[in-house]
Amino acid sequence: MDFLEQIRNLKDQFRTGSKFTLPDEFKNVVISGMGGSGIAGRIFQELYHGKPTVVNEGYEIPEWVDASTLFIAISYSGNTEETISATTMAHSAGANIVKISSGGKLSKLPGLQVTVPGGVQPRSALGYLLSPLLNSFGMLSPVRDRVYRLIGSIDEDSSFLKSIASEIASNQLIPLILALPGFTSTGIRWKTQFNENAKLMAFSLNFPELDHNDIMAFEKSYMRERFFPIVIGDTTNEQINKRVRITSKLTGLRFSAVRPRGESLLEKVLYTIHCGDYLSYYTSLLRKLDPEDVGIIEKLKSELAT
Amino acid sequence: MDFLEQIRNLKDQFRTGSKFTLPDEFKNVVISGMGGSGIAGRIFQELYHGKPTVVNEGYEIPEWVDASTLFIAISYSGNTEETISATTMAHSAGANIVKISSGGKLSKLPGLQVTVPGGVQPRSALGYLLSPLLNSFGMLSPVRDRVYRLIGSIDEDSSFLKSIASEIASNQLIPLILALPGFTSTGIRWKTQFNENAKLMAFSLNFPELDHNDIMAFEKSYMRERFFPIVIGDTTNEQINKRVRITSKLTGLRFSAVRPRGESLLEKVLYTIHCGDYLSYYTSLLRKLDPEDVGIIEKLKSELAT
Repeated sequence: MDFLEQIRNLKDQFRTGSKFTLPDEFKNVVISGMGGSGIAGRIFQELYHGKPTVVNEGYEIPEWVDASTLFIAISYSGNTEETISATTMAHSAGANIVKISSGGKLSKLPGLQVTVPGGVQPRSALGYLLSPLLNSFGMLSPVRDRVYRLIGSIDEDSSFLKSIASEIASNQLIPLILALPGFTSTGIRWKTQFNENAKLMAFSLNFPELDHNDIMAFEKSYMRERFFPIVIGDTTNEQINKRVRITSKLTGLRFSAVRPRGESLLEKVLYTIHCGDYLSYYTSLLRKLDPEDVGIIEKLKSELAT
Repeated sequence: MDFLEQIRNLKDQFRTGSKFTLPDEFKNVVISGMGGSGIAGRIFQELYHGKPTVVNEGYEIPEWVDASTLFIAISYSGNTEETISATTMAHSAGANIVKISSGGKLSKLPGLQVTVPGGVQPRSALGYLLSPLLNSFGMLSPVRDRVYRLIGSIDEDSSFLKSIASEIASNQLIPLILALPGFTSTGIRWKTQFNENAKLMAFSLNFPELDHNDIMAFEKSYMRERFFPIVIGDTTNEQINKRVRITSKLTGLRFSAVRPRGESLLEKVLYTIHCGDYLSYYTSLLRKLDPEDVGIIEKLKSELAT
């Protein structure tokens, strides 16, 4: 599959129906994963409201992990060293372990294994990694067909996203994503897609938190005109909508916006995420770079192993 | 107190000894706060290992908050509208409520009130806001005197920090903080201090997560030479130390570093945070800006209220 086909493949990934059985009892959820795999955990955390859920990055785990913890390890390759280390520790701590991977060393560790199809880049496997979580907690089936259609609609027509990519590339700007409540993980996904696909520094801030600190930089910072602030998401909270307008007015920064389609937050998040996939892809092409290339990450991994 | 005195005041704030009584039983902790008040919750979350702890930003609360939740609201003024809204919701959900403020509307809401001294900017009140948390969980008393001396040592000699501020200001750079494990909240604090004191865009990334995405931007991004990457923290994990070296080598970005003094992570975090306080202060002076000024935030609040 070439990289554009990988992006197009997202909607089909939600068709897989793969799932795991939840333990009879658990008090909290920890999701461990890095990069393109970890983001599935962040999206789930923002959508799931059942129990305290913590996303864990790195080699270690929180000390409170115990037999009451549902510990979900996600690594698309199954060979991410941080996630293998964290999962081994969680097993020693007595946690209920679920692993989601296409194989690799992770699949051999103790715990319930969910094996997903391989063959794409980890960041193009978001549907494979996220749907077992959504399926197992009963969150996907009510909206599956709508998700499929919504995501497909972007594949067909994305002239709006192409025009944003063109604005970023022709003015050599740094994407500055301003996420509305419910779209924090979407903002992180956009940022990482700009990093990996377009090889661009990119940053994600959140409303209303940014009104307590970043706003002070928007007016007077070095290079303020070289950032491209773009609001993502929507909200019925009128104080938030007011904040967006006032923040732009007081700082003199013009905000672009990508508004979601869909009814539920899940649909809106997946729709907006897929907009970011295309946007970073188009930006990469305009920069005449290979969106699929992650050569430095591969080099880093091989040097780390020596 | 002028702003430099407010910075110097930090060490004395850890002398206050203010604390609250923990509920007999609780299963999880939620800390709600924004900006300079919320950061106290983030620092506590990173240092406390007893129970699942979630930092909550914004107007809403997680749906799983219930009678088993210890809900701690922090707002220095006591008038932060997001925190008042969240605390009201947490009360309706039956949570155990503790409020930390210098007064304000928050102090009138139901729950246990911890009133701290007023009179400084919220971001200069970190010791007032953090020490009730550390005291109540028994985390401060073993190291209090060392914290006091360590922080005091920066007040006396900070030529190293002045030289970094000068490099940022004379080359008009954007601080890019690269936090080692355990220093994620310190990185966020540095970022927000650069925002508010120096009126600079600033961003905080974490090792090892940045090796899965941002690294792809470090070599080829627009304006890569206009960011100032600075590693904060230290670690005995040799894979992490290797990552720092290899990431710099492969991307050709030179990393500066601010290493902590102190023995425990708590001491190191507070030391490093105070370095960032001074660094952002010096940067502000070199930019000929008033470090204390947060006029836009005040304007925003007054426009929001109309």
